[in-house]
Amino acid sequence: MEEQSIRVEESRSRKEKPNSDELIFGRHFTDHMFVMDYTEGLGWHNASIVPYQNLSISPAAMVFHYGQSVFEGLKAFRGQNGDIQLFRPKKNVQRLNRSNERLVIPPIDEDFGLEAIKRLVEMDKDWVPDAEGTSLYIRPFIISNEPYLGVAPSHHFKFVIILSPVGSYYKEGIDPVKIAVENKYVRAVKGGTGEAKTGGNYASALKAQEIVEKEGYSQVLWLDGVEKKYIEEVGSMNVFFKINGEVVTPVLNGSILSGITRDSVIQLLKHWDVPVSERRISMEEVYEAHQNGTLEEAFGSGTAAVISPIGELYWEGHHLTINNGKTGEISKKVYDTITGIQYGKIEDSFNWLVKVGKKTEVKQKSLKKSITSLS
Amino acid sequence: MEEQSIRVEESRSRKEKPNSDELIFGRHFTDHMFVMDYTEGLGWHNASIVPYQNLSISPAAMVFHYGQSVFEGLKAFRGQNGDIQLFRPKKNVQRLNRSNERLVIPPIDEDFGLEAIKRLVEMDKDWVPDAEGTSLYIRPFIISNEPYLGVAPSHHFKFVIILSPVGSYYKEGIDPVKIAVENKYVRAVKGGTGEAKTGGNYASALKAQEIVEKEGYSQVLWLDGVEKKYIEEVGSMNVFFKINGEVVTPVLNGSILSGITRDSVIQLLKHWDVPVSERRISMEEVYEAHQNGTLEEAFGSGTAAVISPIGELYWEGHHLTINNGKTGEISKKVYDTITGIQYGKIEDSFNWLVKVGKKTEVKQKSLKKSITSLS
Repeated sequence: MEEQSIRVEESRSRKEKPNSDELIFGRHFTDHMFVMDYTEGLGWHNASIVPYQNLSISPAAMVFHYGQSVFEGLKAFRGQNGDIQLFRPKKNVQRLNRSNERLVIPPIDEDFGLEAIKRLVEMDKDWVPDAEGTSLYIRPFIISNEPYLGVAPSHHFKFVIILSPVGSYYKEGIDPVKIAVENKYVRAVKGGTGEAKTGGNYASALKAQEIVEKEGYSQVLWLDGVEKKYIEEVGSMNVFFKINGEVVTPVLNGSILSGITRDSVIQLLKHWDVPVSERRISMEEVYEAHQNGTLEEAFGSGTAAVISPIGELYWEGHHLTINNGKTGEISKKVYDTITGIQYGKIEDSFNWLVKVGKKTEVKQKSLKKSITSLS
Repeated sequence: MEEQSIRVEESRSRKEKPNSDELIFGRHFTDHMFVMDYTEGLGWHNASIVPYQNLSISPAAMVFHYGQSVFEGLKAFRGQNGDIQLFRPKKNVQRLNRSNERLVIPPIDEDFGLEAIKRLVEMDKDWVPDAEGTSLYIRPFIISNEPYLGVAPSHHFKFVIILSPVGSYYKEGIDPVKIAVENKYVRAVKGGTGEAKTGGNYASALKAQEIVEKEGYSQVLWLDGVEKKYIEEVGSMNVFFKINGEVVTPVLNGSILSGITRDSVIQLLKHWDVPVSERRISMEEVYEAHQNGTLEEAFGSGTAAVISPIGELYWEGHHLTINNGKTGEISKKVYDTITGIQYGKIEDSFNWLVKVGKKTEVKQKSLKKSITSLS
């Protein structure tokens, strides 16, 4: 089995870095990017770190027409001692492969994928900002780039990782947001792609988002696509409700994204002996809990925001104010703990952090037998 | 209101054209392409015909991450007298704008969009092949190309038209195909994007398609995402069933693509006084019709294939052979009539054809008031 390492081409010029306190989410990009190609029969090859640059892609590339693409999102943090650390990055690489499976994209070698992330972050480590709440957002993605107009899985792909120094995702910060329950549009349905991190899910969501924003809400709360009854996600986050002392989050049913922050929240709550359950939960149940005074907290969870408390839910004419529109105790504790671990202020007792810059030499294991015959 | 015309930059070199009898769908592209940019506040601008070339796009372009894109597909035919004619192209431009609306993409000026198609085809008219069953496939598409990682509608788009000389879409030609009813995966659901021609719908469908192909079926038949009971589409086509003398096609319910060939088929059937109805139809009903001998024909309809007769349907362990696996009478008549009109062998009594090369000067009406203030 042939092994491959990462070729590095350093950028000759360095961009000016934005000030740590002026960062906007997803607008600035670092000096380098990781790229790797896939060709059927040859497998993933040509892994390289190169200067950040435009991609030159055929207008017939399948990604433009049939949306065969997947992505991930994770962050690198500058710890107290200056160490640069990733938060549960292996989970992202594993989920990328699950998304690949659904979208008929060939899997990547997970150890090598993680190595690519670490090497790229190490290369651009000066871009990891150090102001409170800032981080380096890491965006791995795969696009189908075969120039072909037939509706079929592509035979060529490009795996790219780009880096973006970011401030807080939400302008409101940890302050509670207003969310509107969506009754017309549907994000995903069982049998669809809701579980995968693929462009189509996000494209589909833009319309509903646009409408509620005009009405003063931050995001929508998605209901299931079949009965429009059960809660799925909030915008691009998972969602939790604390009802009468128990924290409830919708069970992963095939149309909900398996969030890594979601998983971290559940682990923390269990560790603290806070009752937590993953189950089906209807909007009716949340409404009734609000009416009888047992809806104590609600919050979204995701890589970008970590925790986003929900201060108001709008549903079928009802404005449900939650915890007097203030950040709840559990919401705050979870937020403080996860961010505390991420920035190295709290001990990482779950072993969630992976340090960047430790010298390792992970080579790519070829996933294709055919590559040996080519060498 | 400022008006804009199309800038033309002719290609200095011309590619070798493939032989008319060796054409594969979607693999060859002509010498030129149409491009036009959108910037918020400025509107659609910079409409140009340029040499066919790769697009240079930021790796952070939103289309790669959040799939905000739409496309169309139509054909130019070489008629008996050498005329080059389009089949109902205005319908495609109108549908593009409906897809735009769903995907939060700014509308294009429809007259100007049609003019762009005509001018580009005129420019590359030598690429319209003349062998039996061949045509020039036209692929207009719009991609979001703002370099931004936030989940929000893009402020920048690129509208592109590329051309591809094509033979028959299906290797089997007008011969009947075997179709498997899909019970696990779902293409679209009401409230989603099924009605729009956007990448995500096609990406979502690849997995099911891959599975049934391995089992010897050409395409899947999609059921509704809610009850998995009612018929929606076949692969990337609309579908018709002739049951006891009546032709039935699923009514457009919000998750089914409003096919232009579908509409043409319905118009023809009405013209011939063949009973035709757009209504909800369950797989159970089709199965029962097959059992009692009244399932007379079944066929898919779409731009690529025109008509694709269904010779066998596989559903929950049952192999339903339709019309002894042969092309049915109505299927054949519809196919012959539509292709006859397209190639100018049959009189175009519905006024479906639009000739290319007639000198017109359609300028783009600006859809943005702001453009006047910039000029």
